[in-house]
Amino acid sequence: MAKSRFEYVRNYELPDPLTPNTFIIVRLDGKGFHKFSDAHNFAKPNDKRALDLMDTAAKTVFDEYKDVVMAFGESDEYSFLLRRATRVYNRRRSKINTSIVSLFTSAYVFNWPYFFPDVPLRYPPSFDGRVILYPGEIEIRDYFSWRQADTHINNLYNTTFWALVHSGQTTAEANKTLQGTNSKDKNELLFSQFSINYNNLPEMFRKGSVLVRQAQQPSVLASSKPQTVQQEGSNENHPVEIASQGPKSSEIITTGHEKCLRKEKTYVGTEGRVVVLHEDIVGDAFWKERPWLLL
Amino acid sequence: MAKSRFEYVRNYELPDPLTPNTFIIVRLDGKGFHKFSDAHNFAKPNDKRALDLMDTAAKTVFDEYKDVVMAFGESDEYSFLLRRATRVYNRRRSKINTSIVSLFTSAYVFNWPYFFPDVPLRYPPSFDGRVILYPGEIEIRDYFSWRQADTHINNLYNTTFWALVHSGQTTAEANKTLQGTNSKDKNELLFSQFSINYNNLPEMFRKGSVLVRQAQQPSVLASSKPQTVQQEGSNENHPVEIASQGPKSSEIITTGHEKCLRKEKTYVGTEGRVVVLHEDIVGDAFWKERPWLLL
Amino acid sequence: MAKSRFEYVRNYELPDPLTPNTFIIVRLDGKGFHKFSDAHNFAKPNDKRALDLMDTAAKTVFDEYKDVVMAFGESDEYSFLLRRATRVYNRRRSKINTSIVSLFTSAYVFNWPYFFPDVPLRYPPSFDGRVILYPGEIEIRDYFSWRQADTHINNLYNTTFWALVHSGQTTAEANKTLQGTNSKDKNELLFSQFSINYNNLPEMFRKGSVLVRQAQQPSVLASSKPQTVQQEGSNENHPVEIASQGPKSSEIITTGHEKCLRKEKTYVGTEGRVVVLHEDIVGDAFWKERPWLLL
Amino acid sequence: MAKSRFEYVRNYELPDPLTPNTFIIVRLDGKGFHKFSDAHNFAKPNDKRALDLMDTAAKTVFDEYKDVVMAFGESDEYSFLLRRATRVYNRRRSKINTSIVSLFTSAYVFNWPYFFPDVPLRYPPSFDGRVILYPGEIEIRDYFSWRQADTHINNLYNTTFWALVHSGQTTAEANKTLQGTNSKDKNELLFSQFSINYNNLPEMFRKGSVLVRQAQQPSVLASSKPQTVQQEGSNENHPVEIASQGPKSSEIITTGHEKCLRKEKTYVGTEGRVVVLHEDIVGDAFWKERPWLLL
Repeated sequence: MAKSRFEYVRNYELPDPLTPNTFIIVRLDGKGFHKFSDAHNFAKPNDKRALDLMDTAAKTVFDEYKDVVMAFGESDEYSFLLRRATRVYNRRRSKINTSIVSLFTSAYVFNWPYFFPDVPLRYPPSFDGRVILYPGEIEIRDYFSWRQADTHINNLYNTTFWALVHSGQTTAEANKTLQGTNSKDKNELLFSQFSINYNNLPEMFRKGSVLVRQAQQPSVLASSKPQTVQQEGSNENHPVEIASQGPKSSEIITTGHEKCLRKEKTYVGTEGRVVVLHEDIVGDAFWKERPWLLL
Repeated sequence: MAKSRFEYVRNYELPDPLTPNTFIIVRLDGKGFHKFSDAHNFAKPNDKRALDLMDTAAKTVFDEYKDVVMAFGESDEYSFLLRRATRVYNRRRSKINTSIVSLFTSAYVFNWPYFFPDVPLRYPPSFDGRVILYPGEIEIRDYFSWRQADTHINNLYNTTFWALVHSGQTTAEANKTLQGTNSKDKNELLFSQFSINYNNLPEMFRKGSVLVRQAQQPSVLASSKPQTVQQEGSNENHPVEIASQGPKSSEIITTGHEKCLRKEKTYVGTEGRVVVLHEDIVGDAFWKERPWLLL
Repeated sequence: MAKSRFEYVRNYELPDPLTPNTFIIVRLDGKGFHKFSDAHNFAKPNDKRALDLMDTAAKTVFDEYKDVVMAFGESDEYSFLLRRATRVYNRRRSKINTSIVSLFTSAYVFNWPYFFPDVPLRYPPSFDGRVILYPGEIEIRDYFSWRQADTHINNLYNTTFWALVHSGQTTAEANKTLQGTNSKDKNELLFSQFSINYNNLPEMFRKGSVLVRQAQQPSVLASSKPQTVQQEGSNENHPVEIASQGPKSSEIITTGHEKCLRKEKTYVGTEGRVVVLHEDIVGDAFWKERPWLLL
Repeated sequence: MAKSRFEYVRNYELPDPLTPNTFIIVRLDGKGFHKFSDAHNFAKPNDKRALDLMDTAAKTVFDEYKDVVMAFGESDEYSFLLRRATRVYNRRRSKINTSIVSLFTSAYVFNWPYFFPDVPLRYPPSFDGRVILYPGEIEIRDYFSWRQADTHINNLYNTTFWALVHSGQTTAEANKTLQGTNSKDKNELLFSQFSINYNNLPEMFRKGSVLVRQAQQPSVLASSKPQTVQQEGSNENHPVEIASQGPKSSEIITTGHEKCLRKEKTYVGTEGRVVVLHEDIVGDAFWKERPWLLL
């Protein structure tokens, strides 16, 4: 059995490097999650357990890939930003794409029981992924603005839709009621018919989830080892706590920090504890506090 | 919050269609499985539970993607062949690649407890994936020959290596003992020192795992719905049984079958029950029995 | 001026290899040739000088690139087939594409005075090019059938159109006359109104131009050096003669030739004198005489 | 002859769009120009006629493609910068690459007689081309610095080499003499042995050629139609004059110009007369005068 006789088929594996020094986004989407959410009785319009699970899966990606410096999640999708200069896997497109999607998927299934202790997973869910390259900072800001705007638009629609359905309309009737309405109409409908002030709803639902690393003083810079290994039978440090203990973003950056954005050959955005935020990322404040994201 | 203002970032999502009518291979590999196998005490040189789990995860991919017509697995890797004419996902490279890798990963974690009931999964494993295009039948045969030759070479080495280690050598000593040996040397060492006739070892270890669909008479062509949905609390039809009930390949094809290889617009290789075989795929016999694989 | 400081920009030059062992077509098209043909008073519907010039430019590509084994031209476009196994330029897409388009363009301008001695070239014409990969022999035959069918369709239309215009219709009237007509209608119109039997028109116009190498007995295999170098002031061996001395295709292949299709590591289609044919390539005869084209 | 039966082969033409809003460089290189320059007796180390011809060919590209905003040439290579936001040919990689290379080649052959009136072109020269994407302004500046540094290094070497050869050394001896020398050594050798002050040599040879558009007041903004169409028999406005009438760069920009860099949907760098400069582009001055180049 000559090894060399068949080896030539490796020549068909072609290189797929991404342009250097360009921002890389990996966005993954749940496959058939409408059916999946029905099969597992997700609460409508938002199931906090499911969103926390998504955030935890994203956090596992952060723990493994130091060059993932930001992520944004909503519903069954998540976008990961790799820092512009990353050389992870020599910037091979397929390797980066599949490694992140696979780890996210794995962490989703792995952590399911902690978030849905009473709901056995009925079948294995999956996600697809794509890689998108952006040359500049403006596009990255606009990319995340696009996703957060999408979160808002979908959530306002879904909140109103399910309020109508829970009040007795069929889904067809609810869809018809909402046809042609704008944002203002939906806000008024929610308030007048259901006494819901949309702006008081949880920020997680209205803003989505943002993952970044919490920059710290060098002296207290904690070890950032993955801590997803679970003790058997132990529930006390399960990932949901980690996911929900995000600090206020205003605590994070100290004055003069910008000066040490780059230390040696590393980069501050790849260190520090991962936090989950639910706040506005369309405006400037979020980005001014974290200048390393767009380096 | 103007939706349209940010929508332009979608233009950065570029098309990635694969050349039509060309064989598609998706090969996935475990990430850090040396460490993973140690952390979960896999038997050496082969852990049948782990291999059965891989086969079951591969079977889930078969159940979901009808145009996957063959797969080959060994150790922590699996290769999937999509039929030449497949139009799944409009042949988009990233979509195909990530969807298969994600589903495989998900099924691996999902089915872990059935194969390792006494070994809790300590952390989420992941796989990377790549897409390779082959223009012709010869390359496809040689591709699978390459993987099966690799299985043989690795397994012979590992079997000898671990026999030495189990008999008291350190891993360094065992490596040294094997340095410069050829196949014949290893076979003799196994036989003379350990009374192991290599050719009597399980075919699963020596040949790897092959998944194909079992062609059937049209009259008995079973429904091919995915059956991975688990009944809550039920263990009685868990995937391990499915994975281990592969028929002898000689039962599969009936005379005159070739005439109905193509029925209407479908294709016989996408129907029928999935079976796991451990047999030679370098020679002609396997392929002659299943002419639809190379259509 | 430190060289190394800027060298890093080379890392942005990414590889673009084509799948091995797959047929490569390079098709080039004239840019703005409607205007170009008007500016140089090309005869309508076909200008033999212009077609001969195209064929000569294509021949220059043949002389330079031995792995170009066939070409087909019509109007202002030309398609080149590189043999399946070619390793020219390590199969780099851009390198192959631009080298062929550039040489064709260069030869077109270079040879212009020989074909249009009384018509000075008024400005430099240009061509674009694309690379298309085909996995199998069927697609290659269908590709060339597609182009030759296109030649026929366009030429029948143009012949009828210009007959009407030359007889006094405006171009708008001629277009209107032809609206909704099929092939039979046009043939009849040509015959009844203009006494033109379409099938008697020159094959060059109806079939396009095919370039292949004329296989020869090894003993008489001529040197195939490029002979486009012109003697100063000499007109006696200018390229138009070369282009027009194509033999009858029936002379080319001798019985038993198939046995020596591959000699050593070479390939018969890359040797022999280049000939220009104007014959049917949709049917089997052309291909059966030249089995090396699809190796 | 059914058209539709073969049309499917078009599906193998796959899209190849370039990432939006990213700088595009097209660099072309002469194929076999060592031989070509020998065959046409180019002066060594630099032939001004050949360089002027290159510049004129580049200018033709400028005239045709308004979104080419800068070019740099040396020896037998030329690099073209397309403005970041260009949508020419929908940013299709092959289309852009081949169109530019083809037009350059065409203009090179077309204009040959004006620059080499006594040297008939012996055979058609050709160029290859590649597309490189750069995400930011720094890389573009460094790209052109890289090429200009290369010009300097090559020219200093070649000047010294040919001085030695013209003084009687063989080429092998000259190579040996220069082995291991640095810039300072070569400068001294030129001065001490040949009384050549390198810095007094023509800037064209030391700096290469830069093409940009000369920004003008809107009121005097000249029509920028291609003027490469030659009058028959006329030599009085041939391209060499155009190429050599480049203004001093200091004349170009007027105060306050930056305010009108973008007018409506157009862009000032795409208008104005094309000029050929031979000046430093590593420093800041060149770029500060033409801020539109990096928009």
